[in-house]
Amino acid sequence: MLNGDDNIVFVGNKPVSSYILAVTSQFKEGSSEVIIKARGKAISKAVDVAEIVRRRYVKNVKADVSIGTEEVAADDGRMMKVSSITIVLAHAQDEST
Amino acid sequence: MLNGDDNIVFVGNKPVSSYILAVTSQFKEGSSEVIIKARGKAISKAVDVAEIVRRRYVKNVKADVSIGTEEVAADDGRMMKVSSITIVLAHAQDEST
Repeated sequence: MLNGDDNIVFVGNKPVSSYILAVTSQFKEGSSEVIIKARGKAISKAVDVAEIVRRRYVKNVKADVSIGTEEVAADDGRMMKVSSITIVLAHAQDEST
Repeated sequence: MLNGDDNIVFVGNKPVSSYILAVTSQFKEGSSEVIIKARGKAISKAVDVAEIVRRRYVKNVKADVSIGTEEVAADDGRMMKVSSITIVLAHAQDEST
């Protein structure tokens, strides 16, 4: 499923357009699948990125979504739990979604 | 799958705790499945609600997540596209996730 970490796009504080470009570039370079990951508040932005890519830029792409919880170190060193999302965008084989 | 709209919780501007209470109440009242929906910025909060319910309040619950785009009327009457998420929380039958 993964060939290195090349096809993973981490969504954070940059504008949505940066991530859309990163994802569409991966598809243009021949990836059949691009993985979008985000945590906390950036989760909404990750969904925007996936939906805009699917609607406007790359046809016949299916989104497989999963959610989870990760532990991250806060500024004061304590471990905090944050929600995360993983969206796997892949060229649909038999049907468009 | 649906028995009316009783088991749908729409996540919006209230604090996370309100929605956690709404979801856990549904399960306590005997629902085998609760659907969490959100749009736009509230998507991150919906994921928090689902993850906190799964981790702390209701055991053996599986999350089935899908994303999409909906059209909503803006204040000026124009139709705008917003991303949406649907998280189906259901009691796992054979394995915990």
